[in-house]
Amino acid sequence: MVTRLSNFFLRTLREDPADAEVTSHRLLVRAGYIRRAAPGIFTWLPLGLKVKAKIEAVIRDEMAAAGAFEVHFPALLPRDPYEQSGRWTSYGDGIFRLQDRKGADYLLAPTHEEMFTLLVKDLYSSYKDLPLTIFQIQDKYRDEARPRAGLLRGREFTMKDAYSFDYTDAGQDASYQAQRDAYERIFQRLGLEYVIVAADNGLMGGARSEEFLHPTPVGEDTFVRSAGGYAANVEAFTTVVPDALPIDGLPEPQIFDSPDTPTIDTLVAHVNAHLDGEYTAADTLKNVVLALTHLDGTRELVVVGLPGDRGVDDKRAEVAFAPAAVEPATPEDFERHPLLVKGYIGPWSPTGPVLGEESATGIRYLLDPRVVDGTSWITGANIDQKHVHSLVAGRDFTADGVVEVAEVVPGDPAPDGSGPVELARGMEIGHVFALGRFFAETLGLKVLDENGKLVTVTMGSYGIGVTRILAILAELNNDAKGLVWPESVAPFDVHVIATGKDAAAFDLATTLAADLEAAGRDVLYDDRPKVSPGVKFADAELIGVPRIVIVGRGAADGQVELWDRRTGEREVVAAAEALRVLAG
Amino acid sequence: MVTRLSNFFLRTLREDPADAEVTSHRLLVRAGYIRRAAPGIFTWLPLGLKVKAKIEAVIRDEMAAAGAFEVHFPALLPRDPYEQSGRWTSYGDGIFRLQDRKGADYLLAPTHEEMFTLLVKDLYSSYKDLPLTIFQIQDKYRDEARPRAGLLRGREFTMKDAYSFDYTDAGQDASYQAQRDAYERIFQRLGLEYVIVAADNGLMGGARSEEFLHPTPVGEDTFVRSAGGYAANVEAFTTVVPDALPIDGLPEPQIFDSPDTPTIDTLVAHVNAHLDGEYTAADTLKNVVLALTHLDGTRELVVVGLPGDRGVDDKRAEVAFAPAAVEPATPEDFERHPLLVKGYIGPWSPTGPVLGEESATGIRYLLDPRVVDGTSWITGANIDQKHVHSLVAGRDFTADGVVEVAEVVPGDPAPDGSGPVELARGMEIGHVFALGRFFAETLGLKVLDENGKLVTVTMGSYGIGVTRILAILAELNNDAKGLVWPESVAPFDVHVIATGKDAAAFDLATTLAADLEAAGRDVLYDDRPKVSPGVKFADAELIGVPRIVIVGRGAADGQVELWDRRTGEREVVAAAEALRVLAG
Repeated sequence: MVTRLSNFFLRTLREDPADAEVTSHRLLVRAGYIRRAAPGIFTWLPLGLKVKAKIEAVIRDEMAAAGAFEVHFPALLPRDPYEQSGRWTSYGDGIFRLQDRKGADYLLAPTHEEMFTLLVKDLYSSYKDLPLTIFQIQDKYRDEARPRAGLLRGREFTMKDAYSFDYTDAGQDASYQAQRDAYERIFQRLGLEYVIVAADNGLMGGARSEEFLHPTPVGEDTFVRSAGGYAANVEAFTTVVPDALPIDGLPEPQIFDSPDTPTIDTLVAHVNAHLDGEYTAADTLKNVVLALTHLDGTRELVVVGLPGDRGVDDKRAEVAFAPAAVEPATPEDFERHPLLVKGYIGPWSPTGPVLGEESATGIRYLLDPRVVDGTSWITGANIDQKHVHSLVAGRDFTADGVVEVAEVVPGDPAPDGSGPVELARGMEIGHVFALGRFFAETLGLKVLDENGKLVTVTMGSYGIGVTRILAILAELNNDAKGLVWPESVAPFDVHVIATGKDAAAFDLATTLAADLEAAGRDVLYDDRPKVSPGVKFADAELIGVPRIVIVGRGAADGQVELWDRRTGEREVVAAAEALRVLAG
Repeated sequence: MVTRLSNFFLRTLREDPADAEVTSHRLLVRAGYIRRAAPGIFTWLPLGLKVKAKIEAVIRDEMAAAGAFEVHFPALLPRDPYEQSGRWTSYGDGIFRLQDRKGADYLLAPTHEEMFTLLVKDLYSSYKDLPLTIFQIQDKYRDEARPRAGLLRGREFTMKDAYSFDYTDAGQDASYQAQRDAYERIFQRLGLEYVIVAADNGLMGGARSEEFLHPTPVGEDTFVRSAGGYAANVEAFTTVVPDALPIDGLPEPQIFDSPDTPTIDTLVAHVNAHLDGEYTAADTLKNVVLALTHLDGTRELVVVGLPGDRGVDDKRAEVAFAPAAVEPATPEDFERHPLLVKGYIGPWSPTGPVLGEESATGIRYLLDPRVVDGTSWITGANIDQKHVHSLVAGRDFTADGVVEVAEVVPGDPAPDGSGPVELARGMEIGHVFALGRFFAETLGLKVLDENGKLVTVTMGSYGIGVTRILAILAELNNDAKGLVWPESVAPFDVHVIATGKDAAAFDLATTLAADLEAAGRDVLYDDRPKVSPGVKFADAELIGVPRIVIVGRGAADGQVELWDRRTGEREVVAAAEALRVLAG
């Protein structure tokens, strides 16, 4: 196919769009791939649609190779299945809800676990039908609070989501592995470097969950890795718990005045000035008050005790307390709970334990796993302007539970014993998740096994953000002048540019374009008659087809220029040689 | 590709779905092509998705050949453009509306004229950029009052919609013709017989509008055609207006008692019994009271006078009075307008004209075009139990206007002089519409012409319902046993069935399937080991791949059976011969 720029639907822009926060958004709009329709909602122009179709073709190909069959669910779905799974409520403001003319509730689906489960329940009833993996490539909707970064976080976006169905755990493992392998092949074909990291299992109680992250310093996700091969996102990292220490013989707690020391920094400065010894933040026990909002709307205060050299990591807290929403306690929360003396909170006071007895206080006290029995701390005495030292865990205070919300710090030991970890950043490009039996249980998907016994099906869920991957590819493949697509997803195979006013150049370019078409190449041919070479070159650099051929002054002698968009190198060759190189 | 039924995601059903009203719905569900997700909303199973993709491929191919470029708009769109065009309101209950978390209004787009117009406005500014035709294949939404007939009238459905942009009327004609030609090729390739009928131009004041109808007695649309080549849908049919007649010398109107004659039938019986002469319903003037509800909510009564042998056609009335909604007047309407004596309404009474002077009565009186000056009528005297005869149009009464709402009757003359028309039924399969400048005017799409003058762009809109066409193809291609697809859209090229317990049969079938795959055929291979031949044959008949080959008892001798699904004929041939026939 030859597409002539003289009548192609394309308008490149010299100016960056005002709302573009990231390079991919800026360049995809300027080069005429996408256009904004509403916040987080985009129109696909011909160039963008071609790249998207190429990514989808790679995914379809590998899904077929992995034995998955394609289906397609509606975007507009009734409330009932999501009500049954609890997600109609738990999605909160994150989904678009609407009613039809009869007042029935619908949503624009953000993901389709419920529908896939019900479809298989509807049609299958025997272990003989399994294993089964089905997938779709479909537009999904999320009502993001702040849609941003162009296609990286949109409100309407395209996903490939696959779901596997097995009746044994071993079968589920195999189905999971088949999708995981397919994902590796997909990212390899797309030229997208990836790290597979352990991810949080989430609410559904699944057995295994991994994310494919593209490592990049500008990634929005932080992950943790050790030289010994451990990799996990911060939410899934688990703390190596130190052994408990002997308590016998430890000094007794002692209250001391500590005026104007409501922060760890001021407290450490104070104790180093007034107490014997050399202290750091790690010797203090920080007590952070969090407010949880549960699904039923109730608000609960929780105090988390953790070593003072660490903060609470928002993402780890989000996961630890899900499905409740977490935020810092407000002044009003403190007013309602005079037990908590702000800036001087502690689990103990001279009159005895203060926190750690939820039944007595109505406030849960949760400890970081490092606060093992026998450790001794400097912490608030729960009296204004006073702290306590030599407060020993397991002797002077206990907790209502343990919680993993502390920041992960470089040098923390990997939980698998593979050495200290470092922190890195990445962008999520895929997710494989052994869901287990949550949805099958909730929605009643059972099959008869070999013995005629009803067994609950075990499922996996496997997602790739198609439009997100397109944006990441654009993010990774560009320079100051524009996009530089990998050949596997470029909108065209070759970009032929005819320059000058010489008919010979246009004739040769037209012939070359036709010859390339005959060789099966998809050609963009810049045949615009009255456009300067400078504008044509700038457009070619912006659009980013990796292989360009310029037909200009040398055309009379049968010479053309091969231009490698990525390296910028140009080479004069005979037209026949250009055809040989580009058709090969 | 060889798809093995032993692990394919398919479950055929022996029972018809309870909610299926039409054959296509019944068979597509039973054969495992689609599954209901909500009223008028369907999930596409692998077989259905394959047929849909084939229809889309034919459409894409012909759109490319017609020089149209593919884009893709969001389904979720902001209110503003639809507010500007007036359609946010005029769609009434027919669209899905919703709000995002910030309370901004959105809709699920039922059609995209506004967005296409704004996109071109956004990017283009010169006549040099035109002509342009762009299209999308996209899921659309309509909140149908009564979604029914499966895919024939759904709430989520797939459309190809194309839009052309020109700056001259001649250019628009050419763009229109190019799409019209492409539609003919598409329907020919899909094996779908069609009639092109003139359609109503609608509210947008477009210049030309035609529908592609598939003629079938079970079609939901009525159209009109003459032996001389005229074809139009009933809404677009225009009446041939007779010449006015001389009024001089016609008898004066005479009132007569007509007890219990509130209907045309009772009136005709009465006058034939009591007046001289032989009368038919065509001699009477029927006055029908309609209530219009305008967009601003106001209710208006309109009286339509038409020959008594014709009723008001609902669809023609809908079009004639759009955008107002039309319904018969209610008893309350009559109560509010004592001027109208129900059953005895007429435009005249002994005291002078009654209707035909809207300014005096507040009620518009509109006449059928056949009621020309000089025609003489029997009609109500606007006094209970009394009629009048010899009431002459243009002498005794006049109208506030003319209206085309009367039924079209076989034998009516075609407006182009091509002879009497007959009525036929069809299903709409496509629509081409020269929109003119309505949207460009409303949304401000102008370009600079050759003289540097701003001119408003003229547009065309061209739609094909992809999922609707799939349903119509299923509706047309089936028998008592199941579907029988045309080869151009069949989900597979060949259905290979291995029968019996003989390994030789399965070996030969496997080889044949592989050989067909090597020859580029897409093969469905029924390799299920413990399923009876009867079940396999029934499934094959239900699924409807047109070319089937059975490998069974004759396999040991290298013999197979070719089975033509459409004719039912079976023929024993050598496997090599089957390969030659099916691969060719």
